[in-house]
Amino acid sequence: MKVIKDRETLDGWLEECNRQGDEVGFIPTMGALHAGHLSLVAEAQKSCSKTIVSIFVNPTQFGPGEDFAQYPRTFTEDRAKLEEVGCDAVFLPSTETVYPPGGQTFIRVEPLASQLCGASRPGHFQGVATVVSILLNLVRPRRAYFGVKDYQQFTLIKQMVRDLAMAVEVVGVAIVREQDGLALSSRNSYLTAVEREQATALYRALTAAKTLYQDGESDSKILEDSARQVLLAAGIEKIDYVEVRHSETLVKEWSGQTPVMLIAAKVGKTRLIDNMLLNQETAINEGNG
Amino acid sequence: MKVIKDRETLDGWLEECNRQGDEVGFIPTMGALHAGHLSLVAEAQKSCSKTIVSIFVNPTQFGPGEDFAQYPRTFTEDRAKLEEVGCDAVFLPSTETVYPPGGQTFIRVEPLASQLCGASRPGHFQGVATVVSILLNLVRPRRAYFGVKDYQQFTLIKQMVRDLAMAVEVVGVAIVREQDGLALSSRNSYLTAVEREQATALYRALTAAKTLYQDGESDSKILEDSARQVLLAAGIEKIDYVEVRHSETLVKEWSGQTPVMLIAAKVGKTRLIDNMLLNQETAINEGNG
Repeated sequence: MKVIKDRETLDGWLEECNRQGDEVGFIPTMGALHAGHLSLVAEAQKSCSKTIVSIFVNPTQFGPGEDFAQYPRTFTEDRAKLEEVGCDAVFLPSTETVYPPGGQTFIRVEPLASQLCGASRPGHFQGVATVVSILLNLVRPRRAYFGVKDYQQFTLIKQMVRDLAMAVEVVGVAIVREQDGLALSSRNSYLTAVEREQATALYRALTAAKTLYQDGESDSKILEDSARQVLLAAGIEKIDYVEVRHSETLVKEWSGQTPVMLIAAKVGKTRLIDNMLLNQETAINEGNG
Repeated sequence: MKVIKDRETLDGWLEECNRQGDEVGFIPTMGALHAGHLSLVAEAQKSCSKTIVSIFVNPTQFGPGEDFAQYPRTFTEDRAKLEEVGCDAVFLPSTETVYPPGGQTFIRVEPLASQLCGASRPGHFQGVATVVSILLNLVRPRRAYFGVKDYQQFTLIKQMVRDLAMAVEVVGVAIVREQDGLALSSRNSYLTAVEREQATALYRALTAAKTLYQDGESDSKILEDSARQVLLAAGIEKIDYVEVRHSETLVKEWSGQTPVMLIAAKVGKTRLIDNMLLNQETAINEGNG
């Protein structure tokens, strides 16, 4: 596996891909790789002849007081995992490569960016949109892969790519879950044993709402309340939001369309998110994709 | 010359260029083409094997009460001019091609966008940055050409392309002037005969400041006052700004660097802009490039 740290080496690798007629699949990550990330690589390998993963903990998507400094950095393990699944290249840009000094440019996707997670994390999605745009421009892949675990992020990136006519296909990949339903997340490593047990309530809350929906309930408030009950019963009280939205646009009005339920809540000090399409038969590890 | 109106035809033309190993040079315009635009085509033809001009009067860069509806649309003449200079293709996208309905994405370049022309035209440079980004993503040229007559726009686009790591080289091309010094502009067509005569004061004001600078004056305020005197003497009283700035970054502090003087003023009801690098020997039609 080629380890690439700067723009020149990346350009050389891409030129070689181009010469060979390779289609490049790209998976941008912040590292601390788990089976969810590796499923993105596997998905890319199905339709692209070369796969490249970037690892960059993007400072502009963390707010003041968030976990930028604490965010797990596990490059040795990450590299071994990527080697093992046959990833072709890993791109490890420095902050200066992604954000040369004196930068002034930011991308806004409004109103998508200011609701749900954006409401409690101001600036977060501006940071996400901007860094993804920069990485896509650096790597210029045929397809880029994102986990739908970050459902709002996935929706926002599809919107940005469409609005800016970026020449890349955005592919969403299903959530990977633990056996007890907890969605894989690099932030799960922050949880204590007790919190880890509590955290399963997010999946159970989503499943409860889905069952209700599939039994004929179509009132957002009733569906949301049912999920909220499950969270509260598990002792999760710091609920940021429990919302049923249109699964394509994330607007509140979804009547006649596919609804998605999105949850964000703090378990102890760790903010977790999860989501589920309510119309699908979703078994653990089959997901939402 | 190929006339291209939609994305599919454009993609086909670009693929053909790619197959033939052509380097594409791109000139985004709002039409109403004059010798200034044609000089951009000539510059592109020097270093690119294929040239494409886009004509799109971009609604998002006009504010309420500005001249969007009135802006000259002269496609028959534009096409003949481009044919004559041997341009390879013209791209005439519809509004829906550039901005598919439901768009939410805008690009901000701050603080560059909010000063000078941006101060009196709020939203203007957000519209410019966004449309140029979309057009660059649609056309994916090797090089893109911009007249430095719109000096702030040129600086902002260079900044955006650098910040977002867009894979294109931005080339600035010198101002083309009438014999009496007036910088060519599609908006000159709004001027009455009397205003047309008054308008030459912009060039004379810039030249006065340049002479002073080259005689050793390095105080921005004194240079600006000298230019302002020339405008006022010509009866131009609606002066938006007369500013000496750093020619790379447009910050106020330029000591030891190349200064550029920028002017925006209304002549009658028509807002005109002009600029000049103060350190250069600039004859008419050699310009600033």
